[in-house]
Amino acid sequence: MSNQLEYFFKPASVALIGASSNPSKLSHGILINMLQSGYQGKVYPVNPGSKEIAGLTCYPDIESLPGPVDLGVVVLPAPRVLESLKACGQKGFKNIIIISGGFKEVGPEGAELERLCLEVAKQFKMRLIGPNCVGAMDLYSGLNTTFIKGLPDKGGISLVSQSGAVSGAIVDLICGKGIGISHLVSLGNEADVTETDVIEYLSEVPESSVIACYVEAIREGQRFIDVCRQVSRNKPIVLLKAGQTNAGARAVSSHTGSLAGSLAAYQAAIKQSGVIMVQTASELINVAQAFASQPLLKGNRVVVITNAGGPAALASDSLAQHAIQLADLSDSTRQNLRSRLTPAAQIANPVDMLGGAEPAEYGFAVEQCLLDDQVDAVLAIHVPTSVVNPDEIARAIGEAAIKYQKPVLACIMGEYSVGNSRSVLQGFNVPCFQYPDQMGVILGAMYNYTQIKNKTAQPPLVNPAQTARPLSEIGIGDHKKELGEAHIRPLLAAYDFPLIRAEIAHDESEVSSIAAGFASPIVMKIVSPDVLHKSDAGGIRLNIQSPTAAIQAYHEIINNIKNNLPSARIEGVIMEPMAPRGQEVIIGMKRDPQFGPLIMFGLGGIYVELFGDVAFRVAPITREDAFEMVRETKAGKLLAGMRGHKPADIEAVVDCLLKLARISLDYPEIEEIEINPLLVLDAGQGVLALDARAIKK
Amino acid sequence: MSNQLEYFFKPASVALIGASSNPSKLSHGILINMLQSGYQGKVYPVNPGSKEIAGLTCYPDIESLPGPVDLGVVVLPAPRVLESLKACGQKGFKNIIIISGGFKEVGPEGAELERLCLEVAKQFKMRLIGPNCVGAMDLYSGLNTTFIKGLPDKGGISLVSQSGAVSGAIVDLICGKGIGISHLVSLGNEADVTETDVIEYLSEVPESSVIACYVEAIREGQRFIDVCRQVSRNKPIVLLKAGQTNAGARAVSSHTGSLAGSLAAYQAAIKQSGVIMVQTASELINVAQAFASQPLLKGNRVVVITNAGGPAALASDSLAQHAIQLADLSDSTRQNLRSRLTPAAQIANPVDMLGGAEPAEYGFAVEQCLLDDQVDAVLAIHVPTSVVNPDEIARAIGEAAIKYQKPVLACIMGEYSVGNSRSVLQGFNVPCFQYPDQMGVILGAMYNYTQIKNKTAQPPLVNPAQTARPLSEIGIGDHKKELGEAHIRPLLAAYDFPLIRAEIAHDESEVSSIAAGFASPIVMKIVSPDVLHKSDAGGIRLNIQSPTAAIQAYHEIINNIKNNLPSARIEGVIMEPMAPRGQEVIIGMKRDPQFGPLIMFGLGGIYVELFGDVAFRVAPITREDAFEMVRETKAGKLLAGMRGHKPADIEAVVDCLLKLARISLDYPEIEEIEINPLLVLDAGQGVLALDARAIKK
Repeated sequence: MSNQLEYFFKPASVALIGASSNPSKLSHGILINMLQSGYQGKVYPVNPGSKEIAGLTCYPDIESLPGPVDLGVVVLPAPRVLESLKACGQKGFKNIIIISGGFKEVGPEGAELERLCLEVAKQFKMRLIGPNCVGAMDLYSGLNTTFIKGLPDKGGISLVSQSGAVSGAIVDLICGKGIGISHLVSLGNEADVTETDVIEYLSEVPESSVIACYVEAIREGQRFIDVCRQVSRNKPIVLLKAGQTNAGARAVSSHTGSLAGSLAAYQAAIKQSGVIMVQTASELINVAQAFASQPLLKGNRVVVITNAGGPAALASDSLAQHAIQLADLSDSTRQNLRSRLTPAAQIANPVDMLGGAEPAEYGFAVEQCLLDDQVDAVLAIHVPTSVVNPDEIARAIGEAAIKYQKPVLACIMGEYSVGNSRSVLQGFNVPCFQYPDQMGVILGAMYNYTQIKNKTAQPPLVNPAQTARPLSEIGIGDHKKELGEAHIRPLLAAYDFPLIRAEIAHDESEVSSIAAGFASPIVMKIVSPDVLHKSDAGGIRLNIQSPTAAIQAYHEIINNIKNNLPSARIEGVIMEPMAPRGQEVIIGMKRDPQFGPLIMFGLGGIYVELFGDVAFRVAPITREDAFEMVRETKAGKLLAGMRGHKPADIEAVVDCLLKLARISLDYPEIEEIEINPLLVLDAGQGVLALDARAIKK
Repeated sequence: MSNQLEYFFKPASVALIGASSNPSKLSHGILINMLQSGYQGKVYPVNPGSKEIAGLTCYPDIESLPGPVDLGVVVLPAPRVLESLKACGQKGFKNIIIISGGFKEVGPEGAELERLCLEVAKQFKMRLIGPNCVGAMDLYSGLNTTFIKGLPDKGGISLVSQSGAVSGAIVDLICGKGIGISHLVSLGNEADVTETDVIEYLSEVPESSVIACYVEAIREGQRFIDVCRQVSRNKPIVLLKAGQTNAGARAVSSHTGSLAGSLAAYQAAIKQSGVIMVQTASELINVAQAFASQPLLKGNRVVVITNAGGPAALASDSLAQHAIQLADLSDSTRQNLRSRLTPAAQIANPVDMLGGAEPAEYGFAVEQCLLDDQVDAVLAIHVPTSVVNPDEIARAIGEAAIKYQKPVLACIMGEYSVGNSRSVLQGFNVPCFQYPDQMGVILGAMYNYTQIKNKTAQPPLVNPAQTARPLSEIGIGDHKKELGEAHIRPLLAAYDFPLIRAEIAHDESEVSSIAAGFASPIVMKIVSPDVLHKSDAGGIRLNIQSPTAAIQAYHEIINNIKNNLPSARIEGVIMEPMAPRGQEVIIGMKRDPQFGPLIMFGLGGIYVELFGDVAFRVAPITREDAFEMVRETKAGKLLAGMRGHKPADIEAVVDCLLKLARISLDYPEIEEIEINPLLVLDAGQGVLALDARAIKK
């Protein structure tokens, strides 16, 4: 097998170590599930206390198993797991799933036990899922190592979950509803195999058409981004992240004992890796279902076809809230609809065929709209009435849908009298949802994925020609941890940041002669490794008009600093021309413990604090990532030219973001940088870094 | 009967006019529903073609009915409705429900027919529901005039819907799930009876414990606010509004033919009337269910009790997103939980009893938490496992819940294996939901309602002592439609708005002498009925330091206006001192066609445009409304004192909002006013109106 993970899903043989003959035990339930899920390989129960369980020969120990076994499923009490792992290794097992709890999640002793298990697994080159998990299902090989009640239908959704309970609950929610699963993996404590490993494996599995993840903490931040960026170009990945609020993050960390990492970093990583984020478990199921059953949505023009105005209005709101447009029907489509639908029907979008709409009308309308070049998808809404059989409506929609390669989604708003209609639709591969107000999230996610796929494949920022020189070589020596503008300028200059012209004066005469050399009014700022907030300390003077005024400003600044921060070391003042007119923004970098350098863009000041208008990405970033950062903020709208203002030089901002990302990779010793303000001039005129600061490790 | 609407719900007799003996007809379905829903009054089918339908004597016409009838339900084709209405009136009917469509919704002819029907109803003092509706249910009297398939359980939720389809779909969604309904009213075209009428009626009906509304357009804006403000103090009103986006609003108006009204006005009206707004149909059902079954939530401190960490983390996120806190358990509660729960349980909040949690543990934990004074409500989450019977878990939760007067909500995340647990819980009046991420909206709505009830009852703005004088009397004569600062100042002064000192100069010598009288620097602005955007036209000069500079500024302004707007009439310039430091905000008023004067507060400029940071209320407003306007914006946070800034004078802003509301009521001829900027000084220092403009009708 090309990928060792395949032994978790399609092993030729499985040993259940700790199988019980007692039907009230989980390990008995696992054995029964294994036997009843259609698995064709060999199953070996292992337990010294039984000769036979559920009709199978039971082996007293691992040593006595008849030959090597691909997969071991361990359900022993925690203290006995380690020895059994060694035995598995010696027997030549390929992979192990440890179902048992009692490891990292219970405290330091458990964590040590878990570490030892991983060591043994590595020694014998076995991969490990768990511990503390419900294991795995492969609906195609029939392998089922879980104790989950119920077996979902076979289909295209692969479910990867850091919570066994959530994966079990999802199975319970979808069982018998025709929502098809290919794989289910519960990862537990992730001693070895992580969500990233499984996503990488599933990307190559043809039965898997969409990967749906429930995640609490992503362990290998950078690798997750790299892998998902690749995988998402070929297969949609949909993700629900728990712990998005402080309360949720606390709940996650008390549950998993793992560091939650900053939400900004998570959101950034998920965006740039092409993963589609959802906010609720039902959205996860709904969106995955749409991807698993429908062709790609080419554009965002959707037609709503309905037998009732109210639900169509709710759907229209929901679509609009997720950037989906109501398509303009072509004239010929309108004419065709007019000719066949009931005369009182509203031939607009929504197409409202009124309460009495019959199956033939549904079929005709769906088909006509699918034929229209101005339509990318059809949403057929039906509210059950006492006069029409909803199964026939479902069949008519399904029969029209399968003829064309455009997405068709159905929404039958009801349950009690809907009967069999959902299965009828699913027989035609048309997913059926219950609430019209759910449809925006679903179609929005589909359109989002189209945009992800359509992105030009950009390598994430190649190394520039120049090789990074040590900080000391570019004049940044043994300053304090905090670096002010004067100290950080050489580094920015080395990366060709457009810096405002600046000269440093150390005394009155230098101030005077430098001032004489400037044509325009001057800005003067203190240079001191001990003054980080120059303005608060009285260390800035603006609009200095002459050498005389410059000398006066110099003394004022020096006096202010001496009075306000008596212990500050004063190195001089930095003198710059007054900046031209432009839009001030902030760019910055801060390291996240989980994901690495987090690149930031925003308007700064109260805009970030009051409105949270700021975008993040994890370095390395692509040019497209940098553009998206600008576009997703309100600051970006301002730069693009609002209210008749000229557009500003967004290209130049993007260049700076890429350079900043480069610096963050080249100099791991730099913990934080902020260029604030970065002045953005009119399009084509570039940017100017007016001030900057940094923090070294 | 004290309220005539009662004849719609508890009539002693009903005539079904247009009853059919053909089981495939809607009117036959209505008759069957009427007979099978437990109604004890007399039912008279009317149809000249039948002698008997469904075992009842059928009457050939209205005249031949044996005596007066309380309620007529009309299912005749539209052209025959009017004559039958006259016959009903003559026979002494109290009320009429017109199920038939073919009225306003089909165009002008239908609208005229509808108008005539209303005229006849008024002539005979009959109230009218419909036309184009599915009628009404009263689960307590057993009256059911609808053709909806299925009868919901009897309970406390009253459903009022402008869409028959939505009300039918909701019945279909909840039927058999133990979600109890008291009334269902489908309002159709609302020729006469509106949602406001029904809400007013239901407020007095003891069986109704919560009013759940689906609304597309509110017809009597001001009355809706007045009625709901009263009703919501005693009974929660939950509302779903379709048409919240442009696309949704278009769908609504093509569906109902009614003007949607501005969304800002809707949102404002709903907030100030104490109505709880939800965003989806499932939220409407869930929130109503919680209100119908649970006591009031006294505070926002909730305990999550669970057998699985993942779902609890999703719940925690959801609660935090709706301002619900995870309660800090008292030490004694922690000790008690520690003593009885499984040793590995997490005794925090969430209380995680782990996968094997048994019914007794659930019961104990719920009870202990309910006993804790630091806990306002309990959310019990359960994920089905193969080892515990969920029905017993449900029973344990229910038995603990009924002992205490605090809300208990349950979430069983599953369906396939959940079996009977929901009904078990509902037997104890504990509502049971499916997804933990739904819980924030539900508990948030409950807490929101507590705050609504706790508000001190304020009369909405009494008339001030002064009587409004005609505009002409206060110096606002026959100017153009647009009134500039100089023109509107007398009106603002009449309402004691704090205005910056200002004098108007008409020539160079007046400019000079006025300037001499100002101590501080001066601002000068053009006065012209034709210049509304003074700054764009070069009509403003700031920071004028002397009488000489003032004369120069005067000529510059006059020249600018002559050059930029040659036809503008120039009345002079207005001279004011430079304003002190403060925070600039905007307050304004604009009339909404549906609701009346809409009062506005915000930071203005790009804050409104980019960030939508603006609050609205419909006048008349209470002092509390005005405070809420400030508090709900980011601007309000700024005024309250962010980042160590001093708090600004919010009381004075509130005074101005109330005065503006007063003006809007006193002068209906004023279409729009904007005070921009209103300068807010430090707390206790007041505000200053620096500029203003208005538009007359």
